[in-house]
Amino acid sequence: MNARENSPQPTTADPTIRQLRVDGRRLWNSLMALAKIGATPKGGVCRLALTDLDRQGRDLVVGWAREAGLTVTIDRIGNGFLRRAGRNDALPPIVTGSHIDTQPTGGKFDGNYGVLAGLEVMRTLNDAGIETEAPLEVAFWTNEEGSRFVPVMMGSGVFAGAFSLDHAYAATDVEGRSVRDELARIGYVGDQTPGDHPIGAYFEAHIEQGPVLEDAGVTIGVVDAVLGLNWYDCTVTGMEAHAGPTPMALRRDALQAATGIMQQVIAIADRYPPYGRGTVGMVQVFPNSRNVIPGQVTFSIDLRNVSGELLERMEADLHAVLDDVRRDTGLAIDLRKVSSFAPCPFDVTCVSAVRQAAQALGYSQMDAVSGAGHDAVYMARLAPTSMIFVPCKDGISHNEIEDAKPEHLEAGCNVLLHAMLGHAKVVGRRDR
Amino acid sequence: MNARENSPQPTTADPTIRQLRVDGRRLWNSLMALAKIGATPKGGVCRLALTDLDRQGRDLVVGWAREAGLTVTIDRIGNGFLRRAGRNDALPPIVTGSHIDTQPTGGKFDGNYGVLAGLEVMRTLNDAGIETEAPLEVAFWTNEEGSRFVPVMMGSGVFAGAFSLDHAYAATDVEGRSVRDELARIGYVGDQTPGDHPIGAYFEAHIEQGPVLEDAGVTIGVVDAVLGLNWYDCTVTGMEAHAGPTPMALRRDALQAATGIMQQVIAIADRYPPYGRGTVGMVQVFPNSRNVIPGQVTFSIDLRNVSGELLERMEADLHAVLDDVRRDTGLAIDLRKVSSFAPCPFDVTCVSAVRQAAQALGYSQMDAVSGAGHDAVYMARLAPTSMIFVPCKDGISHNEIEDAKPEHLEAGCNVLLHAMLGHAKVVGRRDR
Repeated sequence: MNARENSPQPTTADPTIRQLRVDGRRLWNSLMALAKIGATPKGGVCRLALTDLDRQGRDLVVGWAREAGLTVTIDRIGNGFLRRAGRNDALPPIVTGSHIDTQPTGGKFDGNYGVLAGLEVMRTLNDAGIETEAPLEVAFWTNEEGSRFVPVMMGSGVFAGAFSLDHAYAATDVEGRSVRDELARIGYVGDQTPGDHPIGAYFEAHIEQGPVLEDAGVTIGVVDAVLGLNWYDCTVTGMEAHAGPTPMALRRDALQAATGIMQQVIAIADRYPPYGRGTVGMVQVFPNSRNVIPGQVTFSIDLRNVSGELLERMEADLHAVLDDVRRDTGLAIDLRKVSSFAPCPFDVTCVSAVRQAAQALGYSQMDAVSGAGHDAVYMARLAPTSMIFVPCKDGISHNEIEDAKPEHLEAGCNVLLHAMLGHAKVVGRRDR
Repeated sequence: MNARENSPQPTTADPTIRQLRVDGRRLWNSLMALAKIGATPKGGVCRLALTDLDRQGRDLVVGWAREAGLTVTIDRIGNGFLRRAGRNDALPPIVTGSHIDTQPTGGKFDGNYGVLAGLEVMRTLNDAGIETEAPLEVAFWTNEEGSRFVPVMMGSGVFAGAFSLDHAYAATDVEGRSVRDELARIGYVGDQTPGDHPIGAYFEAHIEQGPVLEDAGVTIGVVDAVLGLNWYDCTVTGMEAHAGPTPMALRRDALQAATGIMQQVIAIADRYPPYGRGTVGMVQVFPNSRNVIPGQVTFSIDLRNVSGELLERMEADLHAVLDDVRRDTGLAIDLRKVSSFAPCPFDVTCVSAVRQAAQALGYSQMDAVSGAGHDAVYMARLAPTSMIFVPCKDGISHNEIEDAKPEHLEAGCNVLLHAMLGHAKVVGRRDR
């Protein structure tokens, strides 16, 4: 299937194809219809993986796919593939997709947009009677969010062989119900072995979930990589003491040292623009009493960057900071790496296809990275992959107030359409 | 009673009196005997106020007092007064004392030392057949620690009129049992109205509960003041966002701003030596998730100093810091003062009496302040007052590993003896 990687299809010279556009209103209406399933009073969606609501959402999408003449395949982890045949149906399909499960306080667009943008591409091609050389598919991946069952990105992870089907099946929610049982209960255990399904190339449209596009006033983010990350737990141990009787010079204040390190985490990230990121999200102070100098502070450190080399330099800087603080304060400082994901550069041909589609369509666009994980990260292990970002309001996601503009969603869908067509090759028009 | 304040008695010229010393071994043995009641496996003491163990401790001390020929009076909040008559028994008594309740993970010395040092003074005077002009008393104050019932320093607070007897009676522990009921249950509701009991002067011996004396290698701390304090809650509100997709420049990181303020709290205290103290003891981060930039951080600020003017300047500096951070970050910062205690300077005559006694006895001594509250703070509202500090190991208190050296405890007790004699005036010797 990698032959395709080396033979990108330029945007066709056929003016009818060049002028092809999705139906933004239909896309929006589909998004709003799906968002009613699990709708929350605050305008968000709570549709956790493998619940009755998830089944209703899947049934709605599968019903729409069948109405559009697509063939539906479900695999054993519940991933769904909605297929539009190609002229040469033996070619690996050009796939798009995302997920329709949500966070407990999720929004209408995260994941759902990627699936329904794919469906809208299919509907548009049907309406125009376009035939492609390679088949096209829309995938919906099981339990991307990981809110109910860990690990996250479960369906695409099993599909890509990141972990086993049995490992995923054994995962349980807080009430002890397993993925295996819940998947069977909602009727979404398919026949196909996950991964036993060729993919020619993969494109995923998604709201940005960050503020960059909105801040820059740009419509399309051409995603060329997903940032790598290192997660650490840092513990500073001093000596707790009464805040009253202990003069400043005789203190071994764990929080004073810890806050110095926390400030430096920001400084390190600032030294590696534009993609260096440093976050302290979690802090535990012991004994956490108003009039006791803290004896111990544990906090998380999250470092991200776009290349492994930059991430290593950030880690080296962190170690240097800790050495300085150890020397200056005499306190014990423990740093433990608790998780690490390598940066994921996307395929240059797929990235170019997205960029060229956006240019041809006349949308403002900029290169972008994804700071968060997506199903596309696992797909990139299997096939040439890239993503298309559109702005979301104030960069907010995983929140019931998540919002996006119809015209941006439509634009991203048009880019998806033309990027997929470029890879699948238009070979003609069917009679309507 | 204030006439006494202006007529301190210099150390007597009588060489027998000058050479009078307490029995350090007897003091130590009494401390160890009392520490058996509520002893913990780690070598500490858990003897919470108004428990059966508190009753056993009170009974032991009262029994020792009666053996020493002292008259025992209990007031209605359970404060005990162990009285040695003076030649002029109508004079207000020179009082010493402290408390015998402990923290849940308390030590052998906090409070207990002050009561048993007073008892040792009485025993020593008995042994030497000394008669004083004014009567002498040892007080034990109910529920100084406040671990089981709030407010802290309850017995001395009611005695000094800081709050009412009914307010104290109504306090309940976590199981809903009231001070009124528990005090009756252990048999320590006396007849006397709290405060209806003159005090000529008050001295309290105590372990330092801080590291200054040990660090300086000094035996006696001449306590001339108790630090005032201001307690604040500070809340910084930014915007929570995903740590991955949000570039550094577009963040509204509440923790980044908060840690900057926390560092400045230390810097403010460092600008007002030697008694300026600044502590952040308690931190709450929201949502406190590893990969979410904190949207809100609330933390406590504890500022202390020896004068109201210095404390006001520290507060002004804090406001200036917050203004700077508001301007630099654009984040909302709320500061609320939740508690305030004015500094408490001790009586110069009483402080001099302690200093002169230490000098006459040849002990190394230094002026000291108390950073923590003591019953003496309330007594200072009623009578000339000061305190005597002795070192404790590593400055540790409110901990089962609290420790102090017998020779330091003996030294502090000798200082107490001579300071009290200076105020009560020796008038002769009784036949033994």
